[in-house]
Amino acid sequence: MANTIRVTVWSEFRHEKTHEKVRELYPDGMHKVIADHLNAQKGIVAKTATLDEPEHGLTDKVLEKTDVMTWWGHMAHDEVRDEIVEKVHARVLEGMGLIALHSAHFSKTFRKLMGTNCSLKWREAGEKERLWNIEPSHPIAQGIGEYFELPHVEMYGERFDIPTPDKLLFISWFQGGEVFRSGCVWERGHGRIFYFRPGHETLPIYYDENVLKVITNAVRWAAPVFQGKHECPCVPPIEKLPRYKK
Amino acid sequence: MANTIRVTVWSEFRHEKTHEKVRELYPDGMHKVIADHLNAQKGIVAKTATLDEPEHGLTDKVLEKTDVMTWWGHMAHDEVRDEIVEKVHARVLEGMGLIALHSAHFSKTFRKLMGTNCSLKWREAGEKERLWNIEPSHPIAQGIGEYFELPHVEMYGERFDIPTPDKLLFISWFQGGEVFRSGCVWERGHGRIFYFRPGHETLPIYYDENVLKVITNAVRWAAPVFQGKHECPCVPPIEKLPRYKK
Amino acid sequence: MANTIRVTVWSEFRHEKTHEKVRELYPDGMHKVIADHLNAQKGIVAKTATLDEPEHGLTDKVLEKTDVMTWWGHMAHDEVRDEIVEKVHARVLEGMGLIALHSAHFSKTFRKLMGTNCSLKWREAGEKERLWNIEPSHPIAQGIGEYFELPHVEMYGERFDIPTPDKLLFISWFQGGEVFRSGCVWERGHGRIFYFRPGHETLPIYYDENVLKVITNAVRWAAPVFQGKHECPCVPPIEKLPRYKK
Amino acid sequence: MANTIRVTVWSEFRHEKTHEKVRELYPDGMHKVIADHLNAQKGIVAKTATLDEPEHGLTDKVLEKTDVMTWWGHMAHDEVRDEIVEKVHARVLEGMGLIALHSAHFSKTFRKLMGTNCSLKWREAGEKERLWNIEPSHPIAQGIGEYFELPHVEMYGERFDIPTPDKLLFISWFQGGEVFRSGCVWERGHGRIFYFRPGHETLPIYYDENVLKVITNAVRWAAPVFQGKHECPCVPPIEKLPRYKK
Repeated sequence: MANTIRVTVWSEFRHEKTHEKVRELYPDGMHKVIADHLNAQKGIVAKTATLDEPEHGLTDKVLEKTDVMTWWGHMAHDEVRDEIVEKVHARVLEGMGLIALHSAHFSKTFRKLMGTNCSLKWREAGEKERLWNIEPSHPIAQGIGEYFELPHVEMYGERFDIPTPDKLLFISWFQGGEVFRSGCVWERGHGRIFYFRPGHETLPIYYDENVLKVITNAVRWAAPVFQGKHECPCVPPIEKLPRYKK
Repeated sequence: MANTIRVTVWSEFRHEKTHEKVRELYPDGMHKVIADHLNAQKGIVAKTATLDEPEHGLTDKVLEKTDVMTWWGHMAHDEVRDEIVEKVHARVLEGMGLIALHSAHFSKTFRKLMGTNCSLKWREAGEKERLWNIEPSHPIAQGIGEYFELPHVEMYGERFDIPTPDKLLFISWFQGGEVFRSGCVWERGHGRIFYFRPGHETLPIYYDENVLKVITNAVRWAAPVFQGKHECPCVPPIEKLPRYKK
Repeated sequence: MANTIRVTVWSEFRHEKTHEKVRELYPDGMHKVIADHLNAQKGIVAKTATLDEPEHGLTDKVLEKTDVMTWWGHMAHDEVRDEIVEKVHARVLEGMGLIALHSAHFSKTFRKLMGTNCSLKWREAGEKERLWNIEPSHPIAQGIGEYFELPHVEMYGERFDIPTPDKLLFISWFQGGEVFRSGCVWERGHGRIFYFRPGHETLPIYYDENVLKVITNAVRWAAPVFQGKHECPCVPPIEKLPRYKK
Repeated sequence: MANTIRVTVWSEFRHEKTHEKVRELYPDGMHKVIADHLNAQKGIVAKTATLDEPEHGLTDKVLEKTDVMTWWGHMAHDEVRDEIVEKVHARVLEGMGLIALHSAHFSKTFRKLMGTNCSLKWREAGEKERLWNIEPSHPIAQGIGEYFELPHVEMYGERFDIPTPDKLLFISWFQGGEVFRSGCVWERGHGRIFYFRPGHETLPIYYDENVLKVITNAVRWAAPVFQGKHECPCVPPIEKLPRYKK
């Protein structure tokens, strides 16, 4: 693998164009804030891609040169073309890391990787969230204390319809009474996947220091150490077999 | 749940019509042999459904009344219509059990549930297989000894591209030198899924006593104790929240 | 297996003798309340055993005839003799179910089964707890709604130092700001283990309808379907081997 | 964490003194061969410790300066003193990596971490073993092909009485007909644990290039990124609570 981790920060980039409040918070889009932060880190080079670019910005060439993709989408999951979803899905199975952010729980690619509905409860009431770090020895949790807080968030509540994570990293406490599995890792094919709950278009979540630290850690963790295609070959025996008459 | 487990034994039922050898072995189809065995068990009622029936035999009414489905397909995975796959997939997430047999590793529904490619190595050389029972306390393994053997099989070899199973029940040893995770369980949504390797159209695998015992045990294990739809509701807070001005 | 599940409800039974408040709540001990509830269920027969009985009430004969054991201890974990711990541990590995209640997280047997420290945070402030049911299709969660509440509890907070559970069933929300993995299952050897957080000597937790329902469900889930010793035999080859000269 | 990984290669070092054949193969002990190989790797410094040294070579100072420990024992597991086992176990929970080699499946520390019996089947017949690499994207499997072979080994067969591994990396095929989960990882406390089957005192297993590569990879994988003690503190509420009268 290359020493530099090549990240593609994908975002729907629609709310930012149509909602005044979102534009104020993220004038160049949430992806720009995330990519800028990643580009300030040693050994990471981040580019961006968005829904309304040709092929959603995800040409074969871009995909080939992406080690880790972060994904944010919300209002236009259905506009992501199926053939692009197929390609991103295939790249994850081949080894590309995927970091699904917030409302990406309902993105086509994440659901295709999970095999489940990925539904949850939600509420926009500006309440407090406290994310408990239950696996402090996981690479993604480095530099995060026992917990961190976000003062005003959109709430996501259980039951989150996902396969049991390989490892559950963060559990959220919400002021309104719910809990949520907010940081989860899985492996699918040769690729590593991280779902991270924080992030909402009308709130400055992607300026939060802890949120950015977790995303950065996750990029390093998800970078592939091995890549390969999945084939289904007919193979000769390794050991000598007796002749068999059908 | 009803006391009787209602099983739909689904099969492609093509090889049996086109290959003389297969017809000899399974004159009424593999599904008939499996369903007959299940119908001889207490508390199980099995019906069959096949590819060439209208809606592949899987109407809404049939799906609604199915607690557990077994699936065998091989040469015509692509002919299974996507809208039927969607319905079967949704039923598993709602709680229906699914038992994927042998070449069903490449069926659309199983792959959709796994989220991975489900590829493997294979060989038809009539070699011996020995299935080691590594979780004798699992309900599916009851009545199976330390191992059982199948004298002549099609070989499936690792790497099997699946998500890490919740529990690995059987590991196969093949005469030609390979190994395989031959019995695996997962949960997705509210449904239980069992993949079981044995079975090939040109071999009398579905007459084997141990194979039938495992399938019967799996039917009982996969029968739902809870069923429910997956929704994504906006919910009011349970605890009183301070007013929040956006 | 026998059709009737034979339960031994074990309890330290010290607080009840020394604290007036505890005696008022549980005049015959917490174990009596739990055992009475279980004995009112079809197909379950529960007996009790306590620390100050000879061999802590856990003679070989009692152990042999126990399908599922529930365990509550708090102030006197260290007084449980190591040879009894060895025997209970061995019985779990052979297939006996174990339900560790509340402060049993620090019991010798539970820690020996987990292999970890099983430490956690705690606080006695009579706060509210809400247990979210995140796996409604698990047998232990049957009859429990989306969540249930306990109005006044001792708080247990993360990080709970346990191995990743096979399945996480309940996550608690606490009024004071913490979360906790309050219902967890594991398998060790041939035995099934359930840790369930609720329960405190100074609070009427074991009279709560939902708590009792979960314990009853857990007893049914943990009842063994297979039992066996663990040996380490030297075995002859199954396949013919070439002669080997050392 | 330091950039250099400090490894303590622990070995019983008894067979090498008492069996002529073993002395010929490993004149300075198996540990010396493993440590020499590790010391030839960039960023790794390995020292050795053995049973017959004072405190088995595992003084507090040595433990404190150990990032990863490898363990080989066979004939004298019982001679390892319990207070040393306690210390090594505690260090793993605090973050130290542990690599248990071959017959270390029955070492006190490994069993204490697993919580199970760790029994298995075995045979010394000099047969062939083929280790299938089923997770090529795991850091421990880097540089290993689809499989590797060892021409003459002691056989270990299932059922291996361990908790379900977090990830199963290698499955062995044996010429005599058995299979085995030969490479398994778990996390306990803050520490990473790898069990690796190959290795026997009368065979030159620890000179094998693939075996040494796996051990080296495992050392890098098991090196801690976080370390911490496990405490059980009483904590004040984070959120304001109503007064509660007991």
